[in-house]
Amino acid sequence: MPGNSIGTSFRVTTFGESHGAAVGVIVDGVTPGVKLSEEDIQPRLDRRKPGQSEAASPREEPDRVHILSGVFQGRTTGTPLFLMLYNRDARSEDYLAIKDLFRPGHADYTYLAKYGIRDYRGSGRASGRETAARVAAGAVAQKLLERIGVTIVAYTHAVAGVVCTEIDETQIDKNVLRAPDAGAAAVMLEEVRKAREAGDSVGGIVACRIRGLPAGLGEPVFDRLDADLAKAVLSIGSVKAIEFGGGFRLAAMRGSEANDQMSRSGFLTNHAGGILGGISTGEEILFRIAVKPTSSIALPQKTIGVDGEEREMSTKGRHDPCICPRIVPVVEAMAAIVLVDHLKRQAALHG
Amino acid sequence: MPGNSIGTSFRVTTFGESHGAAVGVIVDGVTPGVKLSEEDIQPRLDRRKPGQSEAASPREEPDRVHILSGVFQGRTTGTPLFLMLYNRDARSEDYLAIKDLFRPGHADYTYLAKYGIRDYRGSGRASGRETAARVAAGAVAQKLLERIGVTIVAYTHAVAGVVCTEIDETQIDKNVLRAPDAGAAAVMLEEVRKAREAGDSVGGIVACRIRGLPAGLGEPVFDRLDADLAKAVLSIGSVKAIEFGGGFRLAAMRGSEANDQMSRSGFLTNHAGGILGGISTGEEILFRIAVKPTSSIALPQKTIGVDGEEREMSTKGRHDPCICPRIVPVVEAMAAIVLVDHLKRQAALHG
Amino acid sequence: MPGNSIGTSFRVTTFGESHGAAVGVIVDGVTPGVKLSEEDIQPRLDRRKPGQSEAASPREEPDRVHILSGVFQGRTTGTPLFLMLYNRDARSEDYLAIKDLFRPGHADYTYLAKYGIRDYRGSGRASGRETAARVAAGAVAQKLLERIGVTIVAYTHAVAGVVCTEIDETQIDKNVLRAPDAGAAAVMLEEVRKAREAGDSVGGIVACRIRGLPAGLGEPVFDRLDADLAKAVLSIGSVKAIEFGGGFRLAAMRGSEANDQMSRSGFLTNHAGGILGGISTGEEILFRIAVKPTSSIALPQKTIGVDGEEREMSTKGRHDPCICPRIVPVVEAMAAIVLVDHLKRQAALHG
Amino acid sequence: MPGNSIGTSFRVTTFGESHGAAVGVIVDGVTPGVKLSEEDIQPRLDRRKPGQSEAASPREEPDRVHILSGVFQGRTTGTPLFLMLYNRDARSEDYLAIKDLFRPGHADYTYLAKYGIRDYRGSGRASGRETAARVAAGAVAQKLLERIGVTIVAYTHAVAGVVCTEIDETQIDKNVLRAPDAGAAAVMLEEVRKAREAGDSVGGIVACRIRGLPAGLGEPVFDRLDADLAKAVLSIGSVKAIEFGGGFRLAAMRGSEANDQMSRSGFLTNHAGGILGGISTGEEILFRIAVKPTSSIALPQKTIGVDGEEREMSTKGRHDPCICPRIVPVVEAMAAIVLVDHLKRQAALHG
Repeated sequence: MPGNSIGTSFRVTTFGESHGAAVGVIVDGVTPGVKLSEEDIQPRLDRRKPGQSEAASPREEPDRVHILSGVFQGRTTGTPLFLMLYNRDARSEDYLAIKDLFRPGHADYTYLAKYGIRDYRGSGRASGRETAARVAAGAVAQKLLERIGVTIVAYTHAVAGVVCTEIDETQIDKNVLRAPDAGAAAVMLEEVRKAREAGDSVGGIVACRIRGLPAGLGEPVFDRLDADLAKAVLSIGSVKAIEFGGGFRLAAMRGSEANDQMSRSGFLTNHAGGILGGISTGEEILFRIAVKPTSSIALPQKTIGVDGEEREMSTKGRHDPCICPRIVPVVEAMAAIVLVDHLKRQAALHG
Repeated sequence: MPGNSIGTSFRVTTFGESHGAAVGVIVDGVTPGVKLSEEDIQPRLDRRKPGQSEAASPREEPDRVHILSGVFQGRTTGTPLFLMLYNRDARSEDYLAIKDLFRPGHADYTYLAKYGIRDYRGSGRASGRETAARVAAGAVAQKLLERIGVTIVAYTHAVAGVVCTEIDETQIDKNVLRAPDAGAAAVMLEEVRKAREAGDSVGGIVACRIRGLPAGLGEPVFDRLDADLAKAVLSIGSVKAIEFGGGFRLAAMRGSEANDQMSRSGFLTNHAGGILGGISTGEEILFRIAVKPTSSIALPQKTIGVDGEEREMSTKGRHDPCICPRIVPVVEAMAAIVLVDHLKRQAALHG
Repeated sequence: MPGNSIGTSFRVTTFGESHGAAVGVIVDGVTPGVKLSEEDIQPRLDRRKPGQSEAASPREEPDRVHILSGVFQGRTTGTPLFLMLYNRDARSEDYLAIKDLFRPGHADYTYLAKYGIRDYRGSGRASGRETAARVAAGAVAQKLLERIGVTIVAYTHAVAGVVCTEIDETQIDKNVLRAPDAGAAAVMLEEVRKAREAGDSVGGIVACRIRGLPAGLGEPVFDRLDADLAKAVLSIGSVKAIEFGGGFRLAAMRGSEANDQMSRSGFLTNHAGGILGGISTGEEILFRIAVKPTSSIALPQKTIGVDGEEREMSTKGRHDPCICPRIVPVVEAMAAIVLVDHLKRQAALHG
Repeated sequence: MPGNSIGTSFRVTTFGESHGAAVGVIVDGVTPGVKLSEEDIQPRLDRRKPGQSEAASPREEPDRVHILSGVFQGRTTGTPLFLMLYNRDARSEDYLAIKDLFRPGHADYTYLAKYGIRDYRGSGRASGRETAARVAAGAVAQKLLERIGVTIVAYTHAVAGVVCTEIDETQIDKNVLRAPDAGAAAVMLEEVRKAREAGDSVGGIVACRIRGLPAGLGEPVFDRLDADLAKAVLSIGSVKAIEFGGGFRLAAMRGSEANDQMSRSGFLTNHAGGILGGISTGEEILFRIAVKPTSSIALPQKTIGVDGEEREMSTKGRHDPCICPRIVPVVEAMAAIVLVDHLKRQAALHG
């Protein structure tokens, strides 16, 4: 099986390279009869687009999503939804200088090892640009989830070691880092500026909370809800770790502390992060992911060329020194895709 | 798609409940012509079996694996391998007392929410017993990996907050906790004893290292090697987190530190844990997982019954207060299954 | 993807060779809470077993199916159902004489070409024995279909060129050929006897009718209901053709004749065989398959050995000279598996 | 699993409606490093386009395929190939008159039954237009097959009861019906004209021959090569039957006639149609399919509206009275997709 699809009953297949003509996605298994238009998708794409953290001029030509099939008279038909975004402003010549170099932290070396050929323009298929298709598909999934009252909220939990101590979700879209703690956000931003000035970049932690999901979703033994969420989220570039609920802290707890005891009004704690035995408990699902620092930095780094010769290189051009805020909508999208898939799988089991 | 299969080109499907007649697995896609016998599988199963940490008598009747199809005259035929383990000593009456209670930390509540019916004997399908089938299938995968020089070593990295500081792999099977640091193992064991005496349990961290894997494995964009490993490992009960390479520590690093620079002799560091862009780099793959404390504890806990009434319960019988050493062979098995699948997928891509 | 599974939301995976220890099947995606016991499965298996056309003593030791997982207190649990049949009376030494020959009409040559190794005992995996697992899984599917009033009836429509002219389904199980026309059955049987006496075998046509299926099942554009039924039925050994409704006769019709016009009370004809655009119309589904003559015959035939040398061979032992009546329950089973899968897929689409 | 994908290791996913913005396809699992351009695809699409049987002016604006991803510097990269065809000349208003009627022989009734909503413009997703995406994907598969010397030739074998008696493949593209027998083609064409004048349509038989395929392809027990070809070809609209090799004639043969005996130089006959036990023998693969007459006819027909009321309708506009010649390239495409998938699966099995 090739790797560009995800989901079983709700299935998402993406295509497209950074500097090709377009990126896009086929979403198959969409519930028919649901109102859907480009206006349901565009705002989520706008949250993902680059350049938002600049005080200066917003991009004049935003990524426009086009629904090219699967909708008739404003409603989904149950046939494949095709969503497309044309690429623009592709200045491929910028990449000529590095076309024969393996950029540290990037997938240049591994793509060539895998395929024997590599589209070096803007990282090709390995570009963050590919996540636009995910966000578009995720917006459709989120539309389906809204109908049953499921909400997904992701945010930047930590940047450069600065951790949010307050979680006020109304703050998330009020700062460029999408952190729920205005005070922490200010400190984070200062760290980001320092890194940029140093020609460097920073990593962070993104958290995601899912509410309103009924108990009973997840398919033991392999396609557990947490396992599928982990796969979906770790398939996003730069994500190197995930933990559910208490996560790594559970490793140092005793059972009497870690177990979520129950009362008539529900679970007394939620160290399990809303999933037990791979199945949703009905409590809030909580997971956190580690995002590595942006690989493209201005500081000089050692590498080799495709000829095996050693070189020193530094990345030109503007790169976001912290990608956490842009990963936030991608995490929400991937979570939504997994949840809709599992809702449909549960319907099939009992169907 | 139901959830009891994993893999695409190398596909593993398990069945069986803790107190049913048997557990077992169909392994489909096995390379034909490979020497295979029960002796290749049994030793790995023996590492997983319960009761090994008791100084007292070893179990008299070990889990015996039976190869019931797919092997002819000592070699695999390419048709489905069927591996079966009969269950023994099932004292289901022990579970009558708790059949209407939701045990904290267990999947009792969620299985009932999902299926509307629950086999309460020994946790049914949610039992750790199910992992025996995984280990059997994994042993076949490991046999295939051996032929190309890939080795997988998992071990207990931390227990109850005690962390190994030395990694001497020759120590792993010399202590009951399967820790690579004899000194740390002794301290861990003391913590385990204290917890057991208190009627409690402890969690830990298991690490896994994969060596000898060629560069180029992994299927972007969704079926990345790390994403698939994460899913496979998080599908093991009690595992609540995973990190690759630098993992959560990368979130606080700068790019100049996190990027693995290259020289003529390879990568200078391995913060990526052997995977870039979802594809193996050829370096050692390293991941760590968080294992929550055993859910079954003797201490009294609050819960509710299926009738919604509040109760207090405590688990009778002997339960291992730390399951890390038993998870070690399961992690190796799941990693092996994923790797063979990706080797075959890479063969298909170029085939 | 290896080839021993069928279905997506209702998934059947079989294993086993003719002369191995057992054949069996994992059925995943079974609706939970449904009453199920071995008595639901055994009668269908009994219809498939060999030796029924002999006037003499029935087999004393019938194939017994064992449900080894997935059922608790008489009801399905939603976890994988495992059904097993132990093999008996395997006289593998009978096959030593032909182990290095490619039997005409059999898969000996192709299995060796594919796998490079071949279990020659009783055709190994290519044996009709494998269909026992299908019938067992199909019985479970049929149990699920009964609940919504779907019935599947297959029968022998023609043998050795003798065609049923009357379709009286009450006759089907009253003659050993399972033909719905008692008069034709007598003539067919005479042809079968003549062929056997001549050391030869005969082919035939099996028909299948499905009633009570709601309109709306089938997943365009590739997983059409007819396409999936065709695949399922052509995966049975000896089946070389399938036609739906008017089938090949439609090729010589005009549109005005072939189109099924509609009135207030439904379709006026059913040349489409109950499927339009790959989706069920709610009318009876009808298909017919061609079954080639039994490959094992006593008459001498030319072949070659694995060494490439030419030989003459004739098959020893008793072989059924017409397998149509034994294929009847297998066709019903495969149809049932496809229908349940599509019912569940439809539930997922709208779920 | 939704139904708009086919293949496992080589996977094709299509989208698009007749009167939407475009139709297209994602082809995943393409061997990297293969030369590919739109010129490899366009000629095959041109064979499928409508209006070729008119002596008058060819369409001025042919279907142009656009490769929008997966190719870099003229070679495939191993990432998803995206092929798109924009729709033109969509006169959707033509369909307003019939939007509330179920056209006999069409999928109008079943689409509404399945989805509860229907894009009535030009049959929507059920349109023959959808096969353009299949032909585009098939052209890629054919390009891969060429490299190993596999050729696929389909042709019109019979129309309106007139059957080719001579098979001269050089004739196929010399007559508008794509028949390999010039004499028969002339008679067929006369029948087609008569039907058109009568406001009616005719059906036919299309045959397909595959040469150069190595022995050993096919995945028993369910994903047999013939089963997978049958599914792929029966997923084409209007195809109602398929037979391999001797097909339905085998049902009336004796085993001594039907079995393909062997000599040192290969099989003496090919009644099996190149497939035994679901695996290719290395001989020519031959199958024939029944194509029902075009459903859209000018003659008045009885039907009902969505309101259940009875109506009489007749189809306006020009419709091809025989679609066999246009199905020919679609059959080749579907066969090619299946063969490449099985080549890759065989590589995975041994990989």
